[in-house]
Amino acid sequence: MLALTILGSNSAIPAYGRNPTAQVLQTNDTAYLIDCGEGTQQQMTLYKIKRSKINHIFISHLHGDHYFGLPGLLNSLGLLGRTADLHLFAPAPLDKIIQLQLDAANSELPYKLYFHPLSEEGPIANDNKISVECFRVQHRIDCWGFIFREKRKPRSINPERAKAYEIPAAYYPELQKGKDYTTKKGTIIPNEEVTNAAPPSKSYAFCADTIYDESIIPKVKNVDLLYHETTYLKDLHERAAARYHSTTHQAAEIAKKAGVKNLLIGHFSSKYEKLDDFLTEAREVFENTELALEGSCIII
Amino acid sequence: MLALTILGSNSAIPAYGRNPTAQVLQTNDTAYLIDCGEGTQQQMTLYKIKRSKINHIFISHLHGDHYFGLPGLLNSLGLLGRTADLHLFAPAPLDKIIQLQLDAANSELPYKLYFHPLSEEGPIANDNKISVECFRVQHRIDCWGFIFREKRKPRSINPERAKAYEIPAAYYPELQKGKDYTTKKGTIIPNEEVTNAAPPSKSYAFCADTIYDESIIPKVKNVDLLYHETTYLKDLHERAAARYHSTTHQAAEIAKKAGVKNLLIGHFSSKYEKLDDFLTEAREVFENTELALEGSCIII
Repeated sequence: MLALTILGSNSAIPAYGRNPTAQVLQTNDTAYLIDCGEGTQQQMTLYKIKRSKINHIFISHLHGDHYFGLPGLLNSLGLLGRTADLHLFAPAPLDKIIQLQLDAANSELPYKLYFHPLSEEGPIANDNKISVECFRVQHRIDCWGFIFREKRKPRSINPERAKAYEIPAAYYPELQKGKDYTTKKGTIIPNEEVTNAAPPSKSYAFCADTIYDESIIPKVKNVDLLYHETTYLKDLHERAAARYHSTTHQAAEIAKKAGVKNLLIGHFSSKYEKLDDFLTEAREVFENTELALEGSCIII
Repeated sequence: MLALTILGSNSAIPAYGRNPTAQVLQTNDTAYLIDCGEGTQQQMTLYKIKRSKINHIFISHLHGDHYFGLPGLLNSLGLLGRTADLHLFAPAPLDKIIQLQLDAANSELPYKLYFHPLSEEGPIANDNKISVECFRVQHRIDCWGFIFREKRKPRSINPERAKAYEIPAAYYPELQKGKDYTTKKGTIIPNEEVTNAAPPSKSYAFCADTIYDESIIPKVKNVDLLYHETTYLKDLHERAAARYHSTTHQAAEIAKKAGVKNLLIGHFSSKYEKLDDFLTEAREVFENTELALEGSCIII
């Protein structure tokens, strides 16, 4: 299971109490921060995100509304006594910006910050539960999306049935991988007889800021949840294209064509006070759509 | 009259809903932003600060809790259509940090940002109502305080008495400056006979982050309001000194020795949830003390 908490989903200027982009994707024991707009650390306090769980931070691009909260967060983690390594995945120029800010404050982080510049599509991070890939999206500057996939979980053993077939416990790890068992007499016990399938692995794709771009479709194919920006309502498709952003209908088209299970929309322009029309319009094209509202926790 | 709005008064880490340092000092038609911790633009929205009134920004030093909100504010001012010049007074390294961030976003501000590096004590800014001086304070890095003084206002003319003495209207500007009038017959009309003194000019001194330092006293002598940091309660004077911060008693001592009218204390450590003891302790030494609480507007 994955749980996604929205800390901010407004574009550019904070407005109507809405903060710039930041999301936290959590498993039982780790948390992945995706983008870090100004005020993210305050939002973490408000929404009870445990900062010590975060070992990986992903920054999609270097427009301020996606990373101006990062320097403050990095500082605060140090002041709170962090010593564990932290991995930061972001466009290359961020490294120098952070270093200049540390130099200006005559300070050093008390933990090791590993900076991983984004340069090629493909796998970038990996732990025992999740793998993360990045992919390019089309925006005004170098910009990246991220896909988080739970790793395939082991099949669960039915101990009574395994005992009935007298399968030795030492072989259980092989059963969990899906292998059949062959008895001493040469009889094959099919794996399905003694194990149950694991719950399906879940996946989440974060598409960052992007113009309508069908090359995204194969990359996010069939994910359980797709976050796609909708800076504007459908009538402003020309403005959206000019600014390398998307509309409600465009986000929903991508979701539909990629066959995803659910769509989450956000990055709302500060010109809109009410967001109801975003939901209505997106659902005209793709029914399983929700708004990325601050504080909401979406179970994937 | 001056009005000071507190947008943030916490030290280092935002805590208990308290934000890092930012204050806005307003006259009728202009506003001066003093420090700009993360979240300042959101606080401006919350406390109804009109951003277009701000033409001068003063940054005391380059610890993040005093300027990490600035890049976002500068960006937002541009997105909101600002074209008027903006003057930024800050330690020199901030110029390069801002430039790198603009370069990374491939963006330019649509208004002219004049960067004034702080290098010498003395007058730094000046308009028809206010003059601003900066002075050095002792902190872990290059750090500055600021004094804002209303300019001396012209005396107000008592028109009935001026007419009774047959003083020509063309001479009124001289009367406002305090000059006496000499009639054609050579009689001297003392200025006080035909004018009233202007209300006294007010002054505000912001001392930034500082260790207890008596060299501040002559610089802030007799101001109407002194802001002095109190990161810690009095029992932690050793920790305060080690970190180049001050305690309640130390701030109050400075206020008392400088003969200021009122003292405002802030920059509270995030280790304190309740602030009552700060007020109690400071008032043991200097009665006219108030807490710099977010959202409060202090009339000077």
